[in-house]
Amino acid sequence: MGLVIAILGAHVLTMDGPDIPGGSVLIGDGGAIQAVGPAADVQVPSHATRVRAEGHALLPGLVNCHNHAAMALLRGYGADLPLQRWLEERVFPAEDRLRSDDVYWGTLAAAAEMLRGGTTTFADMYFFEDEAARAVDEAGMRAVLSRGLVGGSQAEAKLAEAEDFCRRFQGAAGGRITTMMAPHAEYTCPEPFLQDIDAAARRLGRPLHVHLAETAAEVAGCRDRHQGRSPVRYLHDLGLLRAGTLTAHCVHVDADDIALLAASGAAVSHNPASNCKLGSGIAPTAAMLTKGVHLALGTDGPASTDSLSMWETMRLAGWLAKASGQDAAALPARTLLQWATRGGAAALGLGEVCGRIAPGLRADLCLVDLSRPHLQPCTDVAAALVYAATAADVAKVWVDGTLVVDGAPTKIDTARALAEAQVRMHHLIDG
Amino acid sequence: MGLVIAILGAHVLTMDGPDIPGGSVLIGDGGAIQAVGPAADVQVPSHATRVRAEGHALLPGLVNCHNHAAMALLRGYGADLPLQRWLEERVFPAEDRLRSDDVYWGTLAAAAEMLRGGTTTFADMYFFEDEAARAVDEAGMRAVLSRGLVGGSQAEAKLAEAEDFCRRFQGAAGGRITTMMAPHAEYTCPEPFLQDIDAAARRLGRPLHVHLAETAAEVAGCRDRHQGRSPVRYLHDLGLLRAGTLTAHCVHVDADDIALLAASGAAVSHNPASNCKLGSGIAPTAAMLTKGVHLALGTDGPASTDSLSMWETMRLAGWLAKASGQDAAALPARTLLQWATRGGAAALGLGEVCGRIAPGLRADLCLVDLSRPHLQPCTDVAAALVYAATAADVAKVWVDGTLVVDGAPTKIDTARALAEAQVRMHHLIDG
Repeated sequence: MGLVIAILGAHVLTMDGPDIPGGSVLIGDGGAIQAVGPAADVQVPSHATRVRAEGHALLPGLVNCHNHAAMALLRGYGADLPLQRWLEERVFPAEDRLRSDDVYWGTLAAAAEMLRGGTTTFADMYFFEDEAARAVDEAGMRAVLSRGLVGGSQAEAKLAEAEDFCRRFQGAAGGRITTMMAPHAEYTCPEPFLQDIDAAARRLGRPLHVHLAETAAEVAGCRDRHQGRSPVRYLHDLGLLRAGTLTAHCVHVDADDIALLAASGAAVSHNPASNCKLGSGIAPTAAMLTKGVHLALGTDGPASTDSLSMWETMRLAGWLAKASGQDAAALPARTLLQWATRGGAAALGLGEVCGRIAPGLRADLCLVDLSRPHLQPCTDVAAALVYAATAADVAKVWVDGTLVVDGAPTKIDTARALAEAQVRMHHLIDG
Repeated sequence: MGLVIAILGAHVLTMDGPDIPGGSVLIGDGGAIQAVGPAADVQVPSHATRVRAEGHALLPGLVNCHNHAAMALLRGYGADLPLQRWLEERVFPAEDRLRSDDVYWGTLAAAAEMLRGGTTTFADMYFFEDEAARAVDEAGMRAVLSRGLVGGSQAEAKLAEAEDFCRRFQGAAGGRITTMMAPHAEYTCPEPFLQDIDAAARRLGRPLHVHLAETAAEVAGCRDRHQGRSPVRYLHDLGLLRAGTLTAHCVHVDADDIALLAASGAAVSHNPASNCKLGSGIAPTAAMLTKGVHLALGTDGPASTDSLSMWETMRLAGWLAKASGQDAAALPARTLLQWATRGGAAALGLGEVCGRIAPGLRADLCLVDLSRPHLQPCTDVAAALVYAATAADVAKVWVDGTLVVDGAPTKIDTARALAEAQVRMHHLIDG
């Protein structure tokens, strides 16, 4: 008879049906959700560890669908610079100095921030992903990792490395790590390279993770390069847009693009903070939703966002849709919560693993203290979570049934991770 | 020899000149700032109470220029409803049940939230403002209070009440409370009433606080009612736009409106979260800035925002300007900090009272802990504060030299205020 955890009395947002006020959730000793329901319907074994959760909301752990987590090392660097100057004068020179252990510490620091804020799963695209995997494993988090691929020198060696990474890490960390193949973007990958990557992904049975239609300049450039075709149309024509493909951004998409995205079954990670801070624009999320595109949410890397808070991501997505459409009813709070939980999990191929509170799924859970002044009085739990909750309101987090946050991350030496990140930031910036 | 407080070692954003890393600030026993400078330049008296602040940022207390604070009682109520339904089905029926002591408790709950997040001053427009003043006084906060005036039944009696309120409360709470006269908006005040309010304001020597150009429907209606004139043009023609006038919103303003606002010297409280959540639109802040409009920031009431965090307000203002203009360089972090501090203070007629850290000004200060994962590594303090800091990072707050937050509000029984607010929320909503 193993460890059973009973979380009792929370307002449970199962994201799998109606909320359960005063609900009980049982986590079994293998880390799966064993039962969820009104208190009266859930038998709590006498040996269970009881967590009293009145005055709290319990929801699935949040899912961040687009990140370059190790860029935590460059948080805030070059803020307010125009995009090209930001990349060329700041990000690229710093990344040229990047070493594999920088990625370990940057990812670990980012994991501390993400877990602390209730994010249990993230999708990453970066370099030295072996080291990102090591950080994810230690932190006790769930992640979908990919080695970002750009064309040019040693492209084929990098592709081999990415393929090897998928083989070695798919299902690692007791199943918490899965993998994707990541052609960086249309504008950084020549067509034969995109095709090679796609062929490898199909061989491996792994999905693609790709930047798509992030800026107006990208779309204009693609039309120049590819017979007037938009990046969405171009990837569609190459066969890369399909169920399982994870696209990031889709800011500059027209009606034709939206129809292609919807028909393909590909998911879109909407990353509003990055799109705003880099001046990329406002994605037409309400239109995409109406047309049936599979939407989810991400932060992008901390060098452009700067926070990895999915709470802020949810409300910014709502605010942008409502303001740009002059429609207060656009993207209701429930829709945003759905994108940040089950929609995100499905976008990462984890729809039967996490993102809902339902028996049989892994216990990735986030317990939010609703007692603080900015959340009171509470007339609507979903609105409070989306429009007012912050990472600091997260009281406890479980991943795979393990308590990974209890006020602070339990499995990360946060002070050490931040100190190491600080040293490495100076190395990257000052050389 | 009275109490002197020395805050030592913080990164000081004076908002009155360059930042001072490792700076010292002395608060004199009358609650004024006595000295600010590099540690070596500031003599700390031996009897001073020392506050060690390494690893923290010290900045002027934040100034929230537009609020209906007691609407904390209706936080989140009717979220995602279209504006007219939100007002008519939710807000107005609830406000019909509002009693004076509801305003006391609602304002006290909001004050707890604002202070906790580093906001030291707010401008309020609501009903039963005597009760708001009582809450502000007890909370130890600074506020500019006004009784909102709409035309219709008993308009003249309300005007007399507002005038009386200004006479009784101007300079109250040891100078922490000042007053304004508040015609609600063009669309709720007939022209003779606007003129009567303005005459009273001039008699009293108090400025005006007025909603302006918040929605497209308001502008269209004004043009219908007033010979094609926009709300800005109309208030200008009536003589209401002048230095000292505080206008809220200015979302739907054209080039002519912007020129009038700039020339008038009136201030604009930009309230981005409310403008987003209610679907009002995106104010052209970058254009207003370029043309010389005096800009500041506000949250609007917690029923439409829902959080009163000025950190979120700053970054949302930046994000909206950058995204809508597709310009990453629009509204740099320093500009947003300026709007939230000295710009806000000046907008409220308090430019020589607070909003900067300079000798002689009142000691309204906010100390932010920069040690948490979402603020580390810190490559740029201003960017970290604007794009990643949250209310929960605020460690200590002083108003008028008094420590009003030390982890939690020191002068408010927060648990009692929230419990009372909860009871009153049910009374307002359920009848």
